[in-house]
Parts: sequence; C-alpha cells; structure tokens
Amino acid sequence: MEKQYQYGILGGGSWATAIAKILTNNGNHIHWWIRDEQNIAFFKKRKHNPHYVSNIYFDLEKIHFSNQAAEIIKAVDVIIIAIPSAYVEAVLKQLPKNVFENKLIISAIKGIIPPNNILLNDLLEQYFTINIDTQYGIIGGPCHAEEVSAEKLSYLTLGSSNETVANKYAAAFKTEYINTVVNTDVMGIQYAAVLKNIYAIGAGIAHGLDYGDNFMSVFIANAANEMAGFLRCCNTKHAGINYAASVYLGDLLVTCYSLHSRNRSFGNYIGKGYSVKNAQLEMNMVAEGYNASKGIYEINNTIKGNLPIATTIYQILWEGLQAKVGFEQIEKFLV
Amino acid sequence: MEKQYQYGILGGGSWATAIAKILTNNGNHIHWWIRDEQNIAFFKKRKHNPHYVSNIYFDLEKIHFSNQAAEIIKAVDVIIIAIPSAYVEAVLKQLPKNVFENKLIISAIKGIIPPNNILLNDLLEQYFTINIDTQYGIIGGPCHAEEVSAEKLSYLTLGSSNETVANKYAAAFKTEYINTVVNTDVMGIQYAAVLKNIYAIGAGIAHGLDYGDNFMSVFIANAANEMAGFLRCCNTKHAGINYAASVYLGDLLVTCYSLHSRNRSFGNYIGKGYSVKNAQLEMNMVAEGYNASKGIYEINNTIKGNLPIATTIYQILWEGLQAKVGFEQIEKFLV
Repeated sequence: MEKQYQYGILGGGSWATAIAKILTNNGNHIHWWIRDEQNIAFFKKRKHNPHYVSNIYFDLEKIHFSNQAAEIIKAVDVIIIAIPSAYVEAVLKQLPKNVFENKLIISAIKGIIPPNNILLNDLLEQYFTINIDTQYGIIGGPCHAEEVSAEKLSYLTLGSSNETVANKYAAAFKTEYINTVVNTDVMGIQYAAVLKNIYAIGAGIAHGLDYGDNFMSVFIANAANEMAGFLRCCNTKHAGINYAASVYLGDLLVTCYSLHSRNRSFGNYIGKGYSVKNAQLEMNMVAEGYNASKGIYEINNTIKGNLPIATTIYQILWEGLQAKVGFEQIEKFLV
Repeated sequence: MEKQYQYGILGGGSWATAIAKILTNNGNHIHWWIRDEQNIAFFKKRKHNPHYVSNIYFDLEKIHFSNQAAEIIKAVDVIIIAIPSAYVEAVLKQLPKNVFENKLIISAIKGIIPPNNILLNDLLEQYFTINIDTQYGIIGGPCHAEEVSAEKLSYLTLGSSNETVANKYAAAFKTEYINTVVNTDVMGIQYAAVLKNIYAIGAGIAHGLDYGDNFMSVFIANAANEMAGFLRCCNTKHAGINYAASVYLGDLLVTCYSLHSRNRSFGNYIGKGYSVKNAQLEMNMVAEGYNASKGIYEINNTIKGNLPIATTIYQILWEGLQAKVGFEQIEKFLV
C-alpha cells in the first residue's frame, strides 16, 4: 500500500502508545513527541513505554523520538494530538503560530479543554493559523489501548469534514486488528467522546452502590438516549446521524461496561463511598470524565439541553451530592 | 393501594416465578397455574419452586395453585401468560373459546410461537373470542429473574394499546424493587424481546470466539441499530419511538452483557466450538433465541428488512455456517 503521509504523534500516554503501535505495525515510520526525555531514553533502551501499556514492544527503527514538539510537527504531514485535555494547552501554546501550516491535525483527545470548556479545534483556532474544515480530523473509539496491545479486533472511526481526507488517513490505521470507519460528524464525535466518560463514571457509581445488571442496562440505555439528544441539539446540520454507530453508542458501551475503563473504575470508588480526592489518589490519576462533567455542565448552562443524568453525576462529583441520593433521583426519571 | 384486579399466572418457569414474587410482595393474592401437579405439591410443602429461582420463598396464603388453566383464568381479572413460546399453543388450544371473555391478558412470553412464527396476540385471535386492542397487554424487561429474587431494582415496561389499561395494571407491579414504565407500542415491544435473544446469542458467540470488549461494544451497537431498523420497518404507525428506552435497548444490553443471560451462555458454547445439540445438552434447555433466529429469518423473507447480523446468527445455528466464518462476514459491515 502506498504510504502517502508521514505521521507524527504528540503524547506519551496509553492511547498515544496504542496509536504508535497501530501505525508502526501498518508499516509507517513515525515521529513521536514525548515530553519527558527520560521516558524517551527508557523507550530507546527497553523498546516499550515505561508507564502505559508497557507490554507493547516497538521496532525502534520505525520511530523518530523527540521532546521538541515543533521539530516533530515539521517532519510530518499528519500530526496526531494525544495529550490529556488538561495539559494540551500548556504544550501547544509554546509553538509558533504557523507550525501547522499544510499539516493535517488529528485529535485523539477524549476530553474537553479547561478552563473554557472548548474542543481541540477551538483551541487550535485560538493559537494558530489553521483552516479547521480542511486540516482537522478526529480519531475515535471504542478502543481501549489494552486491547490494541493484545491485538483484539477493534474499530476506529476517523472523522473529518472532508470525507476524502478522512478516507486517505484512515488507510494508515487499517490493520489485521483494526477496522476503520469514516464519519463527517466532527463535532458530534468529539462531544460523544466527552459525554461517554461522564456516563461511565455513573455506571461505575451504580456498580459501587450495588445496583445489579438489570438496573445497569436501564441506566446505560437512558444515558445513550440523553447523549443522542444532546448531540442532536448541538449539531443541527447533521440530522439523520446513526447514533447507534460504534463511535457513539459503541464507545459508550465499552466505557460503561469494560473493566479496562478508568472512568468506570473511578465511579466505582465514588459509589463505594470514597471521596473524589481519595478515589483519585487510589487510582493515581484523574479520570477524564471528572473534568468533563464540569465542562459539560457549564456548557449546558448555555445550551439548556436535557441532561438530567450528566447533571446529577456532576452534582455528585463537584457539589457534594451523596451518590446514593443522586441515584435515587435518577431512578425516578429512567424509562 | 386499592387492589382493583385479581391476578393469575400461567406457567411455572423462572420468569413466571419472578412475576409471582413481585405480585405477592405487592400485596396481591394470586391464582397460579402450574402444569405439573408434583411441582404444585412441592411448592405447597417447601414454599419455593423446585426447579427455577428456588431461592424465592412464598407466603402460601397469598397463592391459589391449580393445574387447571381454565379454573385459574375464570378466577381472575388479569391473566399473565408466561409459558415458553414452544409450549404455549399446546396449553392454550385446550381451553374453551370464550375463556378470556372480560379478561385482560398480559403476555410475558419472550419468543415467537412456532410453527408459524406468530406473536401471542395472533395465537389468541386464532383460538379465542377476544379483542386485542382492549384486552391484550405485554410485560417486558430488562429483568432477569435472578435479580428479582435478589430484589435488585429493576424496570418493567407494561405495554397496551390502551394507556389507561396499562397504567391500571402497571400499579400492581410497582414495588420497592420494581419501577414501571408504560408504553403503547405492543407490536414493537414483542419483536424487540424476540430479536434481543438472537443478538445475545451473537454476543455469546463473539465471546466464545475470543473477541474482546472493544469488538463486543461495536457488535452490540450495530445490533441495536439493526433492531431499531426492523422495528421501524414493521411498525410504521409508531414513528418517533425512543428505541433507546429500557424495553428496547436496555433489554438488549442486559441480555447481551449479563452473565445471567442463557442466550448469551448458549452462544458462548457455540463460539467455543460446541454443536447446537451439545450446547443444548450442556445447558439442559433450549435458549429462546435459537428458535427465534429461525422465526425472524422466515418472517424477514417476507418483510425483506435489513437484518445481516440476525441472518448470520441464523445461518450459524441452523445452516451449519462455521461461527468463525460467520463473524468474519459480520466484521466487514459493522460501522
């Protein structure tokens, strides 16, 4: 297969590492920015990520590492941004205004960017000379990195306003264990990726509160409906979208049901009575859905969508509402 | 609460037993037909079902048992039919033509009735003097009997063309651990209950074939979409139905994901390479989805709906298609 594009990745977490595996398994030579020089040194010596999905081993001849983001971006045609949403602005704002000229940018971010609750495309327009319609795309799940490492068949959705562009870079991700789907709903895919983490925290809370399988299915079905309603509401030009497709409902399901899901695990701690702070300490991380719940709550203060489940999760996580009391409220409006 | 109706149950399986628990916990005196006199004798002596959800104990003062169906029906206002679809015709056809006069009939059957692949309302019209619009209702899940026995909060949907009627009998099911939802889509609820068992067998096969969580979520999301498409297709007068509600998507989810699901377990055997016959022997039962896959396949030969997943499951179960080969076909069209 003709490799028309040179690919680069910004980020050293588990999702960035899984994407690096897919691209290199597919024959690409990649350019990879990792912030911490020590981690790069570890990679070069041990051929795997020191901290995340460290059972993925790499052919180092296929990777050019650098801790200079501008250098990596300069070397590539397509740059995949896989930095946690809480840190992405700090990294990007140091780069020159024209750094993305003639580049395709693919967001692999599954969160909303603080403090103004914006999507990556908004952040990019704020700092750089860029045409979102022609230069911006998305890579979406359902795809836990752990299963990429195990080469379990997974589906990625590549999104772009321009379907031809999306098809072109989708080819780079298609492997024996990755099937690709193309979708032009750039906005909806991004919001779905944010929302599903909030509902997965809810599913975890429900599990922690000792609800059973019957209730869980009702909760998640209602969350799917709430999510689709929000997406329809903020995305009027995309009438007729199939919200049961893998990148919407599928990603919600895997995030709510899979034991790989960190958002579900975080919720489980909350349901069992841990404070937010203690749950984060136990997990040694902040689940994306935690900040997302606040971001979506604030956005919805403007949009006024119908988000009773997401709002209750926000109140539990940020306003001290008891999990048990919150779910007693939720019980009342599920159908 | 005023108890306006007298309730009866036909059937002695796990779902019938769970319904008996709900109704008696809710203060109703019930009339219960169980075919086998020995099982009735066991019930009277030991206060629980000898074979199914036998951890549910009953207050015998609240139950009038009989193995004479006509006698039970005569004693009640509302008769709940919870006989496996394969046996229901044999039971009903012995009853007098006017036995259901002035009775409400609630179907708790989650299958399609052989040999002509009909729903219970069709069977009733064939044998009895009955007005389906005013006398017929449905009780739907997602509700595994095992969780009713454990009193885990579950949701039941009570369906009837006549919402007032549905609301009236819904009240009899509302308890501390059961919330009720009312729905007028009698046809769609019945088909959803049939279809979900087919997809759950598929989920089990996928699990048996060693697909992971990522794939499972894509498979189930696509099944949800296929199911909604079929329901829209055979149910034109119900435009605008929320197919993410618990009785549609929720029931699909619990049947595909829960370890209580016998259809999923049956599929798991098939995925691991057991023949249909050996899987049935191992489980000592026929999963409803097995016959349902044939029934829906035959129905769809007329309707010509778009059911590629259900059709492939049918081919695996009935036409000797290798499970692995069938799922390689399915992989190609998931989105």
